[in-house]
Amino acid sequence: MPKAVVLLSGGLDSTTALAVARSRGFDCYALSVDYGQRHRVELDRAAAAAKALGAVEQRVVKIDLRQIGGSALTADIDVPKDRSADDMGHGVPVTYVPARNTILLGLALGYAETVGAFDLFIGANVLDYSGYPDCRPEFLSAFGALANLATRAGTEGTGTFRVHSPLLKMTKAEIIREGTKLGVDYGATLSCYDPDAAGRACGRCDSCLLRKKGFAEAGVPDPTAYQ
Amino acid sequence: MPKAVVLLSGGLDSTTALAVARSRGFDCYALSVDYGQRHRVELDRAAAAAKALGAVEQRVVKIDLRQIGGSALTADIDVPKDRSADDMGHGVPVTYVPARNTILLGLALGYAETVGAFDLFIGANVLDYSGYPDCRPEFLSAFGALANLATRAGTEGTGTFRVHSPLLKMTKAEIIREGTKLGVDYGATLSCYDPDAAGRACGRCDSCLLRKKGFAEAGVPDPTAYQ
Repeated sequence: MPKAVVLLSGGLDSTTALAVARSRGFDCYALSVDYGQRHRVELDRAAAAAKALGAVEQRVVKIDLRQIGGSALTADIDVPKDRSADDMGHGVPVTYVPARNTILLGLALGYAETVGAFDLFIGANVLDYSGYPDCRPEFLSAFGALANLATRAGTEGTGTFRVHSPLLKMTKAEIIREGTKLGVDYGATLSCYDPDAAGRACGRCDSCLLRKKGFAEAGVPDPTAYQ
Repeated sequence: MPKAVVLLSGGLDSTTALAVARSRGFDCYALSVDYGQRHRVELDRAAAAAKALGAVEQRVVKIDLRQIGGSALTADIDVPKDRSADDMGHGVPVTYVPARNTILLGLALGYAETVGAFDLFIGANVLDYSGYPDCRPEFLSAFGALANLATRAGTEGTGTFRVHSPLLKMTKAEIIREGTKLGVDYGATLSCYDPDAAGRACGRCDSCLLRKKGFAEAGVPDPTAYQ
């Protein structure tokens, strides 16, 4: 079976991306990045998801992006709450982490080269939440092209790197339906930007609001533990 | 003055790149990355170089690439010694760190976005040592293009990211002559892949051999402290 590296935060999207990669016949190597985000409890969820969905292994790379800052997720900026769908639709949100997906995909690329994988999976999604520049299809395909120039594996012609973003144009409801079909236990995933110490979701940040709406639209009972 | 982020390892090349960026009129923000390399003593040299060459500030980001491994610099693989120039000229060396420059430039990009810089300097060099895929001009210009797709700053049109690699096509001797003219104190830089605890160079790894040869060819006395 071909190998794939899957970026796995432990949230709804990345956990579904892992399930999709498995369903497409890849042996999956899950990479979780501890980048000093506020929601570190996600990492426990990532480990559980990797196990539940049959990843070959999971590695956790620590990187302290608080040294760089510039985001509500890595610096001392408040996570916005109770925003309307209309508010979320405008501009780049403060939860944007500068160059985050470039850094995460760079790490996934290094890991892929080490284990001999050429396929990178990321749970990026543009439909519900289009504010992040590094979730757009043009960024993701540019990264794929870069990967083939950046690496020994890419330049020695033993394979071609490809970035897969199977959720890119799905609504949250479609993602939830797809993951449910593939056996994802969404009660074990955490999407909240501001969970409490017990890992319960706030229910009010953009991520929670979109997730709630997704379960409602999918007609799937929301198993999330809220504060 | 425009701002630039300079990747600064504390070695000969990156320290010269900082001096060049300063000479071109940039306010320089130095970024050093502690990626679990064997030569951690470089980080002290980086701090000294940032100060000596008038960087506005220096930040150190820690990232544990040993979780990914795959290189003599981050895993338990011996650093090759006493290789001929001919040996060095063939293939990708074991000191290649998978996706290293993608990860380093990704971090530089995040830092640049946070401080409002659009110019990234890297001391990459292809002439003396062409084995690293992610030092080639096609990689570096692809990264520049990616940067403009990857970021809020790039997509909002407030500026255009550019990767500068002023040493790219210079020989080690030319780099040393240029840096000497710009006041670089090479006695304070460290290029060795395998220094001792006191920060003295081994004199026998590829990096030491190329550096020695560079000083000889430049006709500049070699100030390096060898073991």
